[in-house]
Amino acid sequence: MTQRVAVVERITKVNDQIAEANRARLEQAGVFGLNIMASPGAGKTSLIERTLPRLTERFRVGVIDGDIATSLDAERAAAAGAVSVQINTGGACHLDANMIAQALGSLPLEEIDLLIVENVGNLICPTGFQLGTHRNVLVSSVPEGDDKPYKYPSSFSRMDVLLLNKIDLLEVSDFDLARFRHGVEVINEQMAFFPLSCRTGEGLEAWVDWVVSQVEGARAGR
Amino acid sequence: MTQRVAVVERITKVNDQIAEANRARLEQAGVFGLNIMASPGAGKTSLIERTLPRLTERFRVGVIDGDIATSLDAERAAAAGAVSVQINTGGACHLDANMIAQALGSLPLEEIDLLIVENVGNLICPTGFQLGTHRNVLVSSVPEGDDKPYKYPSSFSRMDVLLLNKIDLLEVSDFDLARFRHGVEVINEQMAFFPLSCRTGEGLEAWVDWVVSQVEGARAGR
Repeated sequence: MTQRVAVVERITKVNDQIAEANRARLEQAGVFGLNIMASPGAGKTSLIERTLPRLTERFRVGVIDGDIATSLDAERAAAAGAVSVQINTGGACHLDANMIAQALGSLPLEEIDLLIVENVGNLICPTGFQLGTHRNVLVSSVPEGDDKPYKYPSSFSRMDVLLLNKIDLLEVSDFDLARFRHGVEVINEQMAFFPLSCRTGEGLEAWVDWVVSQVEGARAGR
Repeated sequence: MTQRVAVVERITKVNDQIAEANRARLEQAGVFGLNIMASPGAGKTSLIERTLPRLTERFRVGVIDGDIATSLDAERAAAAGAVSVQINTGGACHLDANMIAQALGSLPLEEIDLLIVENVGNLICPTGFQLGTHRNVLVSSVPEGDDKPYKYPSSFSRMDVLLLNKIDLLEVSDFDLARFRHGVEVINEQMAFFPLSCRTGEGLEAWVDWVVSQVEGARAGR
């Protein structure tokens, strides 16, 4: 057991060092990075697809799509106006900093302002691996249920911003928004929160404004 | 890289040996085991909750609930008529055979006919770890989208039966059932398939009948 823990700690430490190098590389090129994480089907790709047309009015955007298999997501991001790269993890349950380092080599970083990383669909494993991006984004969704912050506290605690997608389904579900919010606030009081629907478009503006403010804030700080 | 692969292979091999011992222990006690896997919020707990009242008419049922945190699920299973044990993995993204071996010690195996294991909410990691149960059950759900078999092929390929939950949401979603079915059939032609809704109860009978046939088939084979 001790040996296994030591191996995991070593992997995490090496990962964090590569993540720091990724961060430096992004900052040198003037790129602000988001790492979007969620369960399978919470709506990461739809979110990117719906917000890209608004974001590309202001910024040049690159997307790195992580998936077990297929390049469906990268194709959707490219169709929505981003420069996109697909990482197929071949079974691995999360992206790590080394995969990102390799993908960065395929992107024209000097021509990009904002990099969106779409992680593998998994509410647990990706949250333990730094990639070198600047903000951690969690997409939760109404059909997953209002108990998720209680059942996956470490995932929710590591985020900078939380989106609750598919709010158009609130009326046909038993989802209790107050219970969900309470579960989140106990774990992570500071986290920004945007309820929205990629299907109807409701709430997307506020989220896009938040992204814009983060990118411009980072620029002003340089 | 080679070293890391070797460690993973060693862990898997040790796991499989413990899984075999679990299987022998279950069979000696006359217990048939199901391992239920799904993304967070696909409806594993609701499924167990809805089917237990029908299953407990025929069988004595034990439930092992795996979660990162909380005992919410085991409480729901107990309220629905099962003998239940909660495993809190403390961050780990899947159950392994060793966790099950420990939980089996807390269950009155001689008094149980059917053991239902509810795995951690994760579409990827649990599918790589044998537990010693007899059938692998995957719960997919309409809001997750019809692209999941294409994006998580190894998860779908390892299953004996596939449930598609939340079919009451088909009419308010863009889910294409033919596309989903095609993706599944390419990967795993033999897999039994039950579309259902834990919310409305539609389709639950066929799934319960399947479970009954599996338990009784195993009994007849002994």
